[in-house]
Amino acid sequence: MRATVLDQSVREFSSGLAAKQPTPGGGSAAALAGALGAGLVSMVCQYTVGRERYADVEEAARRVLARADELRVELEQAVDADVAAYGSYSQAQSMPRETEADQRERHAALQAALRESTEVPLGVAERCAELLELAAEAAEIGNPFLISDAAVGAEMAAAALASAELNVRLNVGGLEDNAFAGEVRTRLDAIAARVGGRELVDRAERAVAERAGA
Amino acid sequence: MRATVLDQSVREFSSGLAAKQPTPGGGSAAALAGALGAGLVSMVCQYTVGRERYADVEEAARRVLARADELRVELEQAVDADVAAYGSYSQAQSMPRETEADQRERHAALQAALRESTEVPLGVAERCAELLELAAEAAEIGNPFLISDAAVGAEMAAAALASAELNVRLNVGGLEDNAFAGEVRTRLDAIAARVGGRELVDRAERAVAERAGA
Repeated sequence: MRATVLDQSVREFSSGLAAKQPTPGGGSAAALAGALGAGLVSMVCQYTVGRERYADVEEAARRVLARADELRVELEQAVDADVAAYGSYSQAQSMPRETEADQRERHAALQAALRESTEVPLGVAERCAELLELAAEAAEIGNPFLISDAAVGAEMAAAALASAELNVRLNVGGLEDNAFAGEVRTRLDAIAARVGGRELVDRAERAVAERAGA
Repeated sequence: MRATVLDQSVREFSSGLAAKQPTPGGGSAAALAGALGAGLVSMVCQYTVGRERYADVEEAARRVLARADELRVELEQAVDADVAAYGSYSQAQSMPRETEADQRERHAALQAALRESTEVPLGVAERCAELLELAAEAAEIGNPFLISDAAVGAEMAAAALASAELNVRLNVGGLEDNAFAGEVRTRLDAIAARVGGRELVDRAERAVAERAGA
């Protein structure tokens, strides 16, 4: 077993998803799609900064680039964190349940694992919400020869966000810590308000239609 | 330089997207997202086939699994094919343009490369349209403990399709072969009719809401 799925080749990762093994699964695929989206936003900015022609957007492009780079690394880490969360859950499930003390411990471990399995995709969703804003901005200000990549970045971020949210919603229902569950739902509402459905994706694609090759 | 980007590690591929280098770019990211989606659909079916409990959907799950496996391999190949298409274009651009004969040759090579750069994402879009149908079916008939993975697969396929379509539309405008350009537009219309906007993604997510953990 490799230390991290990020060290697997792209082909191994893709085949690993398809295989009859629980990880990597949808949570890791979603995090990776987000990381790919962040990478594309960075690429657009890389071809924008430091050029006389785009001097008027230099500062904004540098800011978007720096933040997209950070988000990419964090989303890459979430690919692994999702595998680890499944490991925690699986380990908790296999704990003994002979005595009452066993059962209490196992129950607590399962709840902790469920919390981990909620926090990881919630973090992915929040990062992808921010990434969607950056992708729309990159499509609007970036080098027009590459802005289709910004729009693809927006599509990747939107799919990653929707996928992560789905996993959060499935896991939050099993949480017994009502305060934490409530906090999770508040954060999901904040994400929904931030992205406004398909609004940011549409903004990126509108920018491509207007500016591509300009 | 590696023979294929599929041999790169997941982390290298993700960093490579972000780097100031033209490939891999949005076309490869889209194809990979499609492959990840196909992988997830396969995984759901892997945990469905051969089980007494899901005997009534055995045949359908086997069919979906076999086809999703094929699509995954084809979409993985498209990750590389997109890099190759960019290489053809870049090579054509650097051809000499001294004489009239040079210019004619260079022009023909650019048109051939543009055709390649249209065919690759068109193939991705068509495969993702089929994959969306399979993902919706897997969400409806698959092992309910894994169907969120089918819905994530649908999200990945939809994002890959939209991204590939964007690249087709950007490239088809530069094609001088009107017959081929017309054929491309006809195939895009067929894809749009097949997937019906977000209909198949919604079907997958409705199935998750109704069946998850059932």
